[in-house]
Amino acid sequence: MKFTIDKTIILNALNNTVKALSQKITIPVLNGIVLNVTKKGIELLASDSELSIKILIDKKDIINIESEGKIIIQSRYILDIIKKMPSDVISFEEYNNNIKIYSDINEFILNCYELSEYPNINIEKSKNVITLNSNILKECINQTSYAMSQQEVRPLLTGLNMKINGDIFECIATDSYRLAKKTIKLTQAIEESVNIIIPGKSVNELVSTLKEDIDVDIHLFNNKVLFIYDNIMFQTTLLNGTYPDTSNFIPKEFKYMINVTLNDFYDAIDRASIITVSKDKNIVKMSINGNKLVIYGSSIENGKTKEEVKIECNNKEKLDISFSSKYMLDALKVLNTENIIILINEDDKPIIINAVDDDTIVELISPIKTF
Amino acid sequence: MKFTIDKTIILNALNNTVKALSQKITIPVLNGIVLNVTKKGIELLASDSELSIKILIDKKDIINIESEGKIIIQSRYILDIIKKMPSDVISFEEYNNNIKIYSDINEFILNCYELSEYPNINIEKSKNVITLNSNILKECINQTSYAMSQQEVRPLLTGLNMKINGDIFECIATDSYRLAKKTIKLTQAIEESVNIIIPGKSVNELVSTLKEDIDVDIHLFNNKVLFIYDNIMFQTTLLNGTYPDTSNFIPKEFKYMINVTLNDFYDAIDRASIITVSKDKNIVKMSINGNKLVIYGSSIENGKTKEEVKIECNNKEKLDISFSSKYMLDALKVLNTENIIILINEDDKPIIINAVDDDTIVELISPIKTF
Repeated sequence: MKFTIDKTIILNALNNTVKALSQKITIPVLNGIVLNVTKKGIELLASDSELSIKILIDKKDIINIESEGKIIIQSRYILDIIKKMPSDVISFEEYNNNIKIYSDINEFILNCYELSEYPNINIEKSKNVITLNSNILKECINQTSYAMSQQEVRPLLTGLNMKINGDIFECIATDSYRLAKKTIKLTQAIEESVNIIIPGKSVNELVSTLKEDIDVDIHLFNNKVLFIYDNIMFQTTLLNGTYPDTSNFIPKEFKYMINVTLNDFYDAIDRASIITVSKDKNIVKMSINGNKLVIYGSSIENGKTKEEVKIECNNKEKLDISFSSKYMLDALKVLNTENIIILINEDDKPIIINAVDDDTIVELISPIKTF
Repeated sequence: MKFTIDKTIILNALNNTVKALSQKITIPVLNGIVLNVTKKGIELLASDSELSIKILIDKKDIINIESEGKIIIQSRYILDIIKKMPSDVISFEEYNNNIKIYSDINEFILNCYELSEYPNINIEKSKNVITLNSNILKECINQTSYAMSQQEVRPLLTGLNMKINGDIFECIATDSYRLAKKTIKLTQAIEESVNIIIPGKSVNELVSTLKEDIDVDIHLFNNKVLFIYDNIMFQTTLLNGTYPDTSNFIPKEFKYMINVTLNDFYDAIDRASIITVSKDKNIVKMSINGNKLVIYGSSIENGKTKEEVKIECNNKEKLDISFSSKYMLDALKVLNTENIIILINEDDKPIIINAVDDDTIVELISPIKTF
């Protein structure tokens, strides 16, 4: 194996490939990146056995392929090494079963893993393919993934529920204390209906590798899904099971309908959360009284805080409701809108957040009863 | 106590005051900042009992002082609170022995410490005063302080040795493996000779609060030193003892005198250190052979690296010498020069680094014998 390539091209490919790697991996060879040089170009593959990313650098983007070959390089320092190479053009060469990475004035010779130790990662296309625009995918994931559970107690909730039904594309995430649901109408209906749960890590890495406004082919299998876009094949196993039906979580009618400027509401909660941080679950209290909303925060250790926010509210009856400021801030952060609508029934019933001028996103936050 | 002040003015003063605080403090009240409001203005004081910083905000810089008073506020969230206040003008008011920090739309009421619990911090001027320009102080500290020891085994070495003798101002730091010495000729001789050891934390915080090109009055005492500049009084205890005499550490004659471009040498070592990082003390080997210098790095785990650097050397005899790449990079980072001179006698004798065009700085790095 021997080839010469532009620094930016190999660095970009490696940057995306390493996203499949996991620090939790116990099989050493899965810390490696498979480099497969053929006449067609260079294929990079990394996998943590659940998520696998394969990237093809086409031969037209390679300065020179002198000889083919396959090798597994160590990922640990590879990005740093490539970034710090002193020239814009870098050569790679197999060297006594290791790899030599070099320029005119310097060289690295890196130990490699045994090819035979690498597990078989099967990445192939399906006949069952759906094509979506990357902007739709990115937006749906970005506005919902924050609500995925970080706890393994209910494994399914650590993933994102992605559904397609006709021309309705929907992403749902919930950790059972909060929920985010994004529903987009596609320009064209899709024959095959889809209902999958993508693991949290894969969701986050998928969105980080997706460029703006490109076609993404989604190849569906029973137990895995393969996204193909640009020169990337992004394959992930799916979480096995039935995602909870959340359709009844969001009430149809509300006693309180509050219209508020997103930034004002966000800043007030952000300030209140300074002193409620740590120990006490970041609880803040919201008091609604006519067209005045007051955010209260307090902590025995630190003191208390109070802030008024102007609102429009349909109900003049006073209502106090408490919630996690962290959860509320997370929910507000993903909204791209100037004004929001807060919907409430009782102080022990969910708070619903809608964006004014954008009915595709619904967010839910459970209140916290305080005494 | 009640006053109103510009956000930027109080934030700036607090930013400097909190530098005296320490996370290691076990006396709770020393997490507080003493706020003393008088007709003259507002005095802020923080101390970890070794380092004390007092700042006076003159009454001309305060929008309004309605009443005087003294209180100890909690430092923990104070910077965040002030930063996130929604208006450019902030009011402070004593409120049931606590402090209320407020604007038109919001308020924080923060718990305060008991005034009586605060230790007596005595900050007064000395008759024994030296005045230096802040640029000289900053430059001397910045170029030497990296070599202070992080280990408490030899407490004196965790500080910076600052000496004045006539018109010679000198700062020295060493952790016994490396040394940095900066010597500046003052424009005017100083009568009193000075030889003090300033604790490491104080050295670092002093430099971080010093503005460019201002007069710094240094008030000397037996066991402490007080720096006065701007509206800041910066007082630190001294380390007690005799700093080791390092004047014989640096040889007068050398077998090898190597002239090299600083950036080329730095980058070569930086690259070699990528794979030597962690476990093996970051050792790199430098091989000098005529007008060629080669940096070698190797690690059993990762592999090896080799890089050539062009040099001019007076001695054509081959020499191999090994050293810590971390120590060498630290030493090179503080030099503001294009070319350096590396001086060596033997592979087990210190490496001396001089800056070409700047004879005020000398750096020493002990070699590491490898087998």
